[in-house]
Amino acid sequence: MKKVAVILGSASDLPVVEKAIATLEEYGVPTEVHVYSAHRTPEEAREFALGARKNGFGAIIAAAGMAAHLAGALCAHTTLPVIGIPIASGKLSGMDALLATVQMPSGLPVATVAIDGAKNAALLAIQILAVTDAALEEKLQAAREKNTREVLEKSAQLEARFNHN
Amino acid sequence: MKKVAVILGSASDLPVVEKAIATLEEYGVPTEVHVYSAHRTPEEAREFALGARKNGFGAIIAAAGMAAHLAGALCAHTTLPVIGIPIASGKLSGMDALLATVQMPSGLPVATVAIDGAKNAALLAIQILAVTDAALEEKLQAAREKNTREVLEKSAQLEARFNHN
Amino acid sequence: MKKVAVILGSASDLPVVEKAIATLEEYGVPTEVHVYSAHRTPEEAREFALGARKNGFGAIIAAAGMAAHLAGALCAHTTLPVIGIPIASGKLSGMDALLATVQMPSGLPVATVAIDGAKNAALLAIQILAVTDAALEEKLQAAREKNTREVLEKSAQLEARFNHN
Amino acid sequence: MKKVAVILGSASDLPVVEKAIATLEEYGVPTEVHVYSAHRTPEEAREFALGARKNGFGAIIAAAGMAAHLAGALCAHTTLPVIGIPIASGKLSGMDALLATVQMPSGLPVATVAIDGAKNAALLAIQILAVTDAALEEKLQAAREKNTREVLEKSAQLEARFNHN
Amino acid sequence: MKKVAVILGSASDLPVVEKAIATLEEYGVPTEVHVYSAHRTPEEAREFALGARKNGFGAIIAAAGMAAHLAGALCAHTTLPVIGIPIASGKLSGMDALLATVQMPSGLPVATVAIDGAKNAALLAIQILAVTDAALEEKLQAAREKNTREVLEKSAQLEARFNHN
Amino acid sequence: MKKVAVILGSASDLPVVEKAIATLEEYGVPTEVHVYSAHRTPEEAREFALGARKNGFGAIIAAAGMAAHLAGALCAHTTLPVIGIPIASGKLSGMDALLATVQMPSGLPVATVAIDGAKNAALLAIQILAVTDAALEEKLQAAREKNTREVLEKSAQLEARFNHN
Amino acid sequence: MKKVAVILGSASDLPVVEKAIATLEEYGVPTEVHVYSAHRTPEEAREFALGARKNGFGAIIAAAGMAAHLAGALCAHTTLPVIGIPIASGKLSGMDALLATVQMPSGLPVATVAIDGAKNAALLAIQILAVTDAALEEKLQAAREKNTREVLEKSAQLEARFNHN
Amino acid sequence: MKKVAVILGSASDLPVVEKAIATLEEYGVPTEVHVYSAHRTPEEAREFALGARKNGFGAIIAAAGMAAHLAGALCAHTTLPVIGIPIASGKLSGMDALLATVQMPSGLPVATVAIDGAKNAALLAIQILAVTDAALEEKLQAAREKNTREVLEKSAQLEARFNHN
Repeated sequence: MKKVAVILGSASDLPVVEKAIATLEEYGVPTEVHVYSAHRTPEEAREFALGARKNGFGAIIAAAGMAAHLAGALCAHTTLPVIGIPIASGKLSGMDALLATVQMPSGLPVATVAIDGAKNAALLAIQILAVTDAALEEKLQAAREKNTREVLEKSAQLEARFNHN
Repeated sequence: MKKVAVILGSASDLPVVEKAIATLEEYGVPTEVHVYSAHRTPEEAREFALGARKNGFGAIIAAAGMAAHLAGALCAHTTLPVIGIPIASGKLSGMDALLATVQMPSGLPVATVAIDGAKNAALLAIQILAVTDAALEEKLQAAREKNTREVLEKSAQLEARFNHN
Repeated sequence: MKKVAVILGSASDLPVVEKAIATLEEYGVPTEVHVYSAHRTPEEAREFALGARKNGFGAIIAAAGMAAHLAGALCAHTTLPVIGIPIASGKLSGMDALLATVQMPSGLPVATVAIDGAKNAALLAIQILAVTDAALEEKLQAAREKNTREVLEKSAQLEARFNHN
Repeated sequence: MKKVAVILGSASDLPVVEKAIATLEEYGVPTEVHVYSAHRTPEEAREFALGARKNGFGAIIAAAGMAAHLAGALCAHTTLPVIGIPIASGKLSGMDALLATVQMPSGLPVATVAIDGAKNAALLAIQILAVTDAALEEKLQAAREKNTREVLEKSAQLEARFNHN
Repeated sequence: MKKVAVILGSASDLPVVEKAIATLEEYGVPTEVHVYSAHRTPEEAREFALGARKNGFGAIIAAAGMAAHLAGALCAHTTLPVIGIPIASGKLSGMDALLATVQMPSGLPVATVAIDGAKNAALLAIQILAVTDAALEEKLQAAREKNTREVLEKSAQLEARFNHN
Repeated sequence: MKKVAVILGSASDLPVVEKAIATLEEYGVPTEVHVYSAHRTPEEAREFALGARKNGFGAIIAAAGMAAHLAGALCAHTTLPVIGIPIASGKLSGMDALLATVQMPSGLPVATVAIDGAKNAALLAIQILAVTDAALEEKLQAAREKNTREVLEKSAQLEARFNHN
Repeated sequence: MKKVAVILGSASDLPVVEKAIATLEEYGVPTEVHVYSAHRTPEEAREFALGARKNGFGAIIAAAGMAAHLAGALCAHTTLPVIGIPIASGKLSGMDALLATVQMPSGLPVATVAIDGAKNAALLAIQILAVTDAALEEKLQAAREKNTREVLEKSAQLEARFNHN
Repeated sequence: MKKVAVILGSASDLPVVEKAIATLEEYGVPTEVHVYSAHRTPEEAREFALGARKNGFGAIIAAAGMAAHLAGALCAHTTLPVIGIPIASGKLSGMDALLATVQMPSGLPVATVAIDGAKNAALLAIQILAVTDAALEEKLQAAREKNTREVLEKSAQLEARFNHN
C-alpha cells in the first residue's frame, strides 16, 4: 500500500494533528510524520515533496496555521494530492490559515478540509488510496456504518428521554 | 481509467465549471457531467452518489454556491473522494459557499478548492487518479513544466521591458 | 395540535438545543426529539422529512453547526416550515453555520434564527402553530406581557439604584 | 385564507421584493403591500403590526437593508410569524442587514431568509399557511416537482452536450 | 444643565454600561438610567424618546447587543442626539451589534462608539453638552490633560526599566 | 449659530461628502470645508482642531477611507464632538474605514455614522447644535415629518399598484 | 546604491504593480523586475532570494494575490527585508492575500502594505535604503512636502467653492 | 549602530511588546522604549517622530490596538521606516488594529506584521539595519540556522515516536 505523509508546520500543532495520525493507524495505512516548515526548513520541505512519489507516498497531509503556506509549498514540488489542514493558531481562529490554504492559484490545487479538521484530512487520504484498494474501501464503509449506528443510538437515548407518548 | 463526475448544483454555474470539464478533457480523463441539486433533486443526487463507485468513478467534483450543500450531500452517500468547488453566486462573493463546503463535520471530508476554482478541482481529481496511473502523472508533470516555462517567458518579457542594465 | 420536531445534527448540541425543547414543553406543544445527521444518517433524516407532514408535524426545528446542512437537507424533502438553528460549534463562532443555514437557494427556504437561538426557534414554531390556534396565541401574548413586566422590574431596580432625584 | 403582508422598509427595495409579491400572487395567496419604515414611519409600522392578526394576516414579510430593524420592530408588536429579508443595499453586500435581522434576542424570533431572498420569503409564508391548508400544500408540492423536472431537463441538456459515450 | 439618559436594552449589559454611568456622575452630569428594550418594551422605549427633549434631556445613550435596534428605535422618535454602544453579547463579539447600530439609513443618524465603548459614549454625551457649557468643557480639558500625564508617567516607568544609557 | 466644519481626508472623497455639505446648507448652518489629511497635512489638521472651539465651531465632521485616522486625529486635539464618516474607498468596501474610525480607545470618542453616511453626519451635527437651538430643532422635526409623508406616499403608490381588493 | 527587486507572482498583476516600478524609477533607485511564482517557479524564486543580498539588493518587493505565498517564500531564503503587496485578485477583494501575506509565523517577518498598495511598497523600500542614504532621504522629504502642498491646494479649491464668508 | 525605537500606544500592551524589546536586546541593537499614544499624547508622539532620524534612530516600531493609529501618526512625521504591530486588544481579535495599521493611504507606508507579531517587528527592524551591517546580518543568518535545527530536532522527536519502520 502507498504511504501517507503527515507534515506539521510546527510541532506545537501536534495536539490537533494527532487525530490524523491515529486515524491513519486505525486504518492500517503506513504513515510517516515529519515537522517541516515552509519558512524555517524550506529545503527539507522541498526535498521531501520532490521525492515523495518515488518514495512510495500516495498522498501528503500538511497542517499549518496563520499564513499557512506549507500545503501550497509542498504542492509546488509534487503532483501527488496534497491535503491541507488549516490550524486555528494565532488570533483569527484559523480564518487566516483557511484562506491561505484553500485560495490556491490555478494549476496548483490543495485539497482543503475544515479548520483543525485533522481526522477528515486522514479520511480523505484514505479515500484517495481506497479508489484502487477495495479492502480499504470496505473499512471506510464499515466505519461509516458504525458512525451511523452511533448517531442512531444517541438518538434513541434522547428519544427515550424526551419523547413521552 | 476511472471516470470523473462533474456535478453542478445549478446549470447557471456552467460558465465557471466549464474550465473543470475542459481540463479533464484535455487530460483524456473520461468525464460525466450532471446537474443535480442537493435541494431540488435530492433523490437523483443520492442515487448518483450511491452508485458512483460501482459505475466506474474514481472522484466526484461538486460545484455549488451560497449554502453550498451539494458536495457534502454527495459525500454522505459515497466513500469516493468528493471535491467541492465553492461558487461565487449570491451577494457574499462565495464566502458562504466556501464555509458551507469546507467546514464539514468529522467523518465526512470534502476536498475543497478555491472559490470558483474549477480548473484546480479538475487537476485535483486527475492527481487522485494519477496516484496509480503513471501516464497521467507524466501529463501532470509536463503541464507543470509548461506552466513554469510560461511564467519564465512572461518574466523575460517584463525583464526586457523594465530592467535596463 | 400538530407536533413540532426538534432534530439535532449531533447529540453534542443538546446543551444549546435543550432550551428549544423546554420552551415547547412549557407551551404544551407535543414535541419529538431526534438526532439525525445530514451526513451520518442521511437516510433517516430523509425518511423523517418525507413522512413528517402525514405523521402530524406542523414544523421542524433543525440544529446544526459548521457546514450546517441539516435544515436544508430536511427542507428538500418536505414542504413543512423548517426552522434552522445555527450552532456555534467549531472555531468560527457559528458564522459558518449561519451562512450554511440561511443562504438557501431559491425554492427552498429555511427559517433561520440567531446563532445558538434555540429558544427563538421554539417560539417561531409555536407562532406558526398559533396562526390557527387562538389558545396558543394567548399563551404567546401572555409570555410577551410577562417578559415586558420583567424588563420593567429590572428597570425599576436600576432606576432605584442610579436615579437619585 | 389568511393574508400575507409584504412590508418594504424602503420603496427602493421593490426590484428585489417584487419576486415575493409575484410568488404570493402565483399561489393565489391574498397579499397586502406597504412601505413602512422602522425609522421613518415607526407609528404606521407599529399600528400595522398591532392590528395584523385581527385584520386577517397569517404572516408578515419584512424587507430592509443596512441596519435592518424593520422585521424586528414588527415582531415586537405581534405574535404572528415575521419573515425577514435582508436586502443588499449599502456597501456591505447585505451582511449588515443579515446580522441585524437574524441575531434577534431571546423571546422575539425573526424567520430570516437569504440576503435578497425574496422568493424564499414568500414560499416560507406560503408553507406557514399550508400547515393547515391542504390545497396550498398541493401547490407547493407541485412546484417542487416542476422545479425538479426543470433541473433534470437542464441536466439532460448538459449531458447531451458533454457526455459522449 | 440638560440631563443625559442611559438606556440599557437588557439589564444584563449593566457590567459594561456602568462605566458610562460612572463617567457621567464623575462630571456631575444629571443622569437617568432605564432598561427599555426595543423589542420587549417597545411602548416604553417609544414614550421615553418622544418625551425626552421636553423632559430636559440633551442626549440619549443606548446600549444593546446582537441585532442591536435600541439606538435606532429611540432615534426614530426624537431629534436629540442618540449615542449607540454596541454590546459584545452573543457569539459574534459585537460585530453584529456594531453593524446593527452604525449602518442606519439616511435621515436617522446614530452616533456610534466602539464595541463595549461605554466610557466613550458618556464622554461623547458630555462633549455634546459642553458645546455650550464652558465649565463642562474645562472639566473635559482637565481630564484630557490628566490622561496625558498618566500616559507619560507610564512611559517614564518603562523608560526607566528598558532604556539604559 | 456655531459653525460646523467638514474636513475631507482626500479631495477625491468629495462626491460622497457633498451630501453633508448640501444638508448643512439646507438647514442654514454655517459651514466650513477643508481638505486636511491626518497623514499628509498633519500640522494643518492639528492646528485646525486646536483652534476649532475658539473659532466658533460646534462640531467637526471628518471623512476618510481605508486606515481612516482623520476623525481620531482631530479628536485628539479638541473636546468638540467629532463625527466620523468612514468612506468606502479602497478594496474592502469601507469595512477598514469603519473599524479605524469607530474602535477608538477609551477617552477619545468619535461619533461614527454609516459607511459613506455623509447626510447622516450632517444631521447628527445639526442635532448637536439643536440641543440648545429650538429653531433648528423645529427644522429637524419638519424634515422628519416630510420624510414620513414621502414614505407614506410611496406606500400609497405601491398599495394602489399591488393591493386589489 | 543597493538595488530593489520587484517580484510579481503573476504577470497579470502588472497593472497594479507598475506603480511600484514607476515610483522606484522616479527616485532613481536601481530596480529589477521578475515574474517568479512561489508555486509555478519555486526554484527560480528560491534561487533569486538566496542570491539577492550578494547580487546587490537591499530590499525585495513581492506582489501576489489569493493564497499569497510569494513574499513568505522569498523571506524563507533571505535575511533582506521583504515587502509584501497583497493583490486584490480573486473573489475576496484581497482579504485572502492580506492575511496570507501578513500573518507570518514568528521568525520570518514580511513587511506588509495595503491591499494593492504598490506605491507604498516602493516608498517603504526607498525608506529602507534611505536609512543610510541622506540624498535619498532628501528626495523622500521633498516628495512629502510636495504631497502636503497638493493637499492644501485642493483644500484651497474646495474652500473657495464652499466657504462663502 | 542606529537605534530602534519601540513605541507602545498603551502601557497595557507591554506583555505582547516585550518580545520585541527582548529580541532587539538579544541582537545587541540599541533600543529606546516609550509609551506615546496617538490620541492621548499626540504632541509627544509627533515630537518623537520629527526628531527620530537626527536622534540616531534607524527604524521605529509602533504597537497599538483597536483603531490603531499610532504607526500611521508617527509615519506622518518621519521618513524613517515605521513598523506597525496590530495588537489584539478589544473584542475583534486585532482585526480592527490590523486594518487600521496596514490600509494606509498612498504616500505613507507602514510596514505591518502579524497581529501581536512583536518578535517579527523586531526582526524586521534588525533586517533593515542589517542591509548595511554585515555583522548584524550574520547574526540573523545564525538565528535562522538555529531555528532550522530546532525544527529538525522536533521533527526527529516526532519521527522517533510515530514512524515505526
